[in-house]
Amino acid sequence: MAINTQVNADHNAPPITQILAKFISSHPSKGWDDSVDHEAHRTFMNWLGCAVGAAKHESVEATLAAVQEFESAPQSSILGRSEKVDMANAALINGISSHTFDFDDTHLKTIIHPAGPVASAILALGEKIGATGREIIDALVIGVDVSCRIGNVMYPNHYDRGWHITGSTGTLGAAAGCARLLKLSEAQTVMALGIAASQPIGFREQFGTMTKPFHPGGAAKAGLTSALMAKHGFTASNKAIEAPRGMVQSVSTKYDWSEVTTELGERFEISLNTYKPFACGIVIHPSIDACVQLRNQGVTADNLERLELKAHSLVLELTGKKTPKDGLEGKFSVYHGCACGIVYGQATEDQYHDEIVQSPEMVALRAKVQATVDNSINEASVDVTAYLKDGRKLHIFVEHAIGSLQNPMTDDHLNQKFNDLSTPIIGVANTSSLIAKCWDLKNLNQLQDLLQYAKPF
Amino acid sequence: MAINTQVNADHNAPPITQILAKFISSHPSKGWDDSVDHEAHRTFMNWLGCAVGAAKHESVEATLAAVQEFESAPQSSILGRSEKVDMANAALINGISSHTFDFDDTHLKTIIHPAGPVASAILALGEKIGATGREIIDALVIGVDVSCRIGNVMYPNHYDRGWHITGSTGTLGAAAGCARLLKLSEAQTVMALGIAASQPIGFREQFGTMTKPFHPGGAAKAGLTSALMAKHGFTASNKAIEAPRGMVQSVSTKYDWSEVTTELGERFEISLNTYKPFACGIVIHPSIDACVQLRNQGVTADNLERLELKAHSLVLELTGKKTPKDGLEGKFSVYHGCACGIVYGQATEDQYHDEIVQSPEMVALRAKVQATVDNSINEASVDVTAYLKDGRKLHIFVEHAIGSLQNPMTDDHLNQKFNDLSTPIIGVANTSSLIAKCWDLKNLNQLQDLLQYAKPF
Repeated sequence: MAINTQVNADHNAPPITQILAKFISSHPSKGWDDSVDHEAHRTFMNWLGCAVGAAKHESVEATLAAVQEFESAPQSSILGRSEKVDMANAALINGISSHTFDFDDTHLKTIIHPAGPVASAILALGEKIGATGREIIDALVIGVDVSCRIGNVMYPNHYDRGWHITGSTGTLGAAAGCARLLKLSEAQTVMALGIAASQPIGFREQFGTMTKPFHPGGAAKAGLTSALMAKHGFTASNKAIEAPRGMVQSVSTKYDWSEVTTELGERFEISLNTYKPFACGIVIHPSIDACVQLRNQGVTADNLERLELKAHSLVLELTGKKTPKDGLEGKFSVYHGCACGIVYGQATEDQYHDEIVQSPEMVALRAKVQATVDNSINEASVDVTAYLKDGRKLHIFVEHAIGSLQNPMTDDHLNQKFNDLSTPIIGVANTSSLIAKCWDLKNLNQLQDLLQYAKPF
Repeated sequence: MAINTQVNADHNAPPITQILAKFISSHPSKGWDDSVDHEAHRTFMNWLGCAVGAAKHESVEATLAAVQEFESAPQSSILGRSEKVDMANAALINGISSHTFDFDDTHLKTIIHPAGPVASAILALGEKIGATGREIIDALVIGVDVSCRIGNVMYPNHYDRGWHITGSTGTLGAAAGCARLLKLSEAQTVMALGIAASQPIGFREQFGTMTKPFHPGGAAKAGLTSALMAKHGFTASNKAIEAPRGMVQSVSTKYDWSEVTTELGERFEISLNTYKPFACGIVIHPSIDACVQLRNQGVTADNLERLELKAHSLVLELTGKKTPKDGLEGKFSVYHGCACGIVYGQATEDQYHDEIVQSPEMVALRAKVQATVDNSINEASVDVTAYLKDGRKLHIFVEHAIGSLQNPMTDDHLNQKFNDLSTPIIGVANTSSLIAKCWDLKNLNQLQDLLQYAKPF
């Protein structure tokens, strides 16, 4: 044994766990502007399309096979499939599928993908307990607010340490949303958050493997289970989030508690959510956007001599795979992203199939991309110069890529993205009905009105 | 967004995940001395008695009620009860019950309670898949070796940060044991460890609440599920444990990789396991031992004027609750431990019932205990002086308490402890049969030969 002393502990944190529990349990239904409610529908719909789109992915098949070893009861839907499993494992699987394509939403302040943990948990629970659409939207806004505010408290230090912040904060968001749906008392909600606080999930080393999407799925399952345990009287510390040896101070050396306490219930982090136009990590998006613009100016794989990309060091640190071996690695390659922009003018899931990533044309084109670090350029921007074989030189500077807060996806963009993802899995008719039900979620008296379409035709 | 750089990352760690996977998948059955095999039986039996003893605790009732909301299939036994649930949730519940009384085993080098996560996972899985007793013992030795070696790698820094090291390393131990039982290939075992590495569970702030025993239970469930997902093809990083942004470097700034690589497969950490004679935190044991000795020399609650206790700062940091309000808080009170030693000559679960902790006699006696920090005294030792009302002064120095490695519980002690815990729950006859089957575990062809007795008569 050895001496155990925690250096620089903050013994004077505000009662964050209790403050959040009061907010979760007592904030009025639709206690926000119409714009927040609309953003919640966009968040839900974008998440659902991503989950349906990946329903047949091997990550889902493997998880479902494992869950079936539990002889799981058919309580809740697996999005995009006919099977049902118990609500906790439905939350797990939908959380995995929704993040499998790396195509979901992003809270840019923290790089949290907020819908995965929260929406997966509340939809699976809501289906089982008969929640209304209004209750789902309320739980989504509140759950996302909890996970993103906790993310704000710790970011960037927590992420720098190696944590995949989506999963590590997602358990709290999922527990918050489920506590709200279950109508837990304030005291029970404190316990739900407390149990969840012992279960942060995920490290960045897993990027490029199935365990990355496992993180939001695992967080969804853990948060849902925590809320149910609290409902039945399980106890936890009432300062599990903020105490010196609680979650936040154990996984981060930065803790700005004002990120929770300031304007809680007045402004909502879901308003800052964004949706990906491209099926890969957000830091690649400016580069793809630039290359799509170059394509529109006539650049092709054939006439390109070389492409000079100047970007922030973070871009290469996260997505610097120059020679990706398969589709999953392609998602972490800014080189492949550039090649997609030039050849296809887009980067949907189709451009991340193994055969595309491995094609000689793409291999050759990626080799023409020369990326260099320039930390005078913001991480959200990129500077690209194409040198053509005929001697021409084309320059593009992207300050804010399509899909950013400053240049957001429109509702029509989201409809098109949903269509592209969903149609191959559940067909045209169900996709069309599902899109309509997503936009109308707040008015649905029962979730079956929506879920009946979220399976193969 | 911000710049993400990890300071002082170790990019040259040995391939720990792969090294462990090779050991787990290929080490021979009973590839160790008889003494190791015997210690494994002691570990299993001590763990099982603790789980049976807490079978009716409200922490178990609450968890079972939550699990029943999943309409869980009756696959595996809940120790000490008639109900069965699916194997993952049986692992959860047995992990919780085995640690609920804080009466289980301790790997003193790390303060890990190793059986909880590992034994809970492998017994639940083994029951479902028809494992033999020999396979359970093999999986227990190997699983405990994995979690304790990872604990050695990080201790004490990881614990200092706030992590409850039993749960944070336990997921890996449980995954290792389950991978062994499932006969996963080396490559599949790498994936099982990888998925598990994203799920460290538990913070020390939860001590004194039900979420403390949740930590080994949650680790058991997560490890079992990780192994099953790996079996079905789910993937993770093959250096998830050791990479710069993998588990260990994200949750500790100390990482001594030689603790894994040195004599792996030659010496076994389970040989260092110890078993508690008293139903509370290990750091209180020397104080209780001293007070039992004082009682044997004639000290009573009535004739005692005051008790001076000198102990290492860790003792008061972990168990300094001077006025515990209930049984659970009593477990974290060295003052209550001293009072138990003087009044009862023991500290079993009975001495931690609320009514004992709250009794005026114990309240008054605790007030007579004056504890001071003396860091010249080892954490495993204590210096106690009793000042009696008649002017006499009795002094006891305990270097190694009963239950320590230097002064271990005998097999007879373990039988008696099992009896005390188990008889009130499952009766004399079943307890007697269960003890016999535990000692004979390595020879059992089917676990039902043992499990049939692990329920109420």
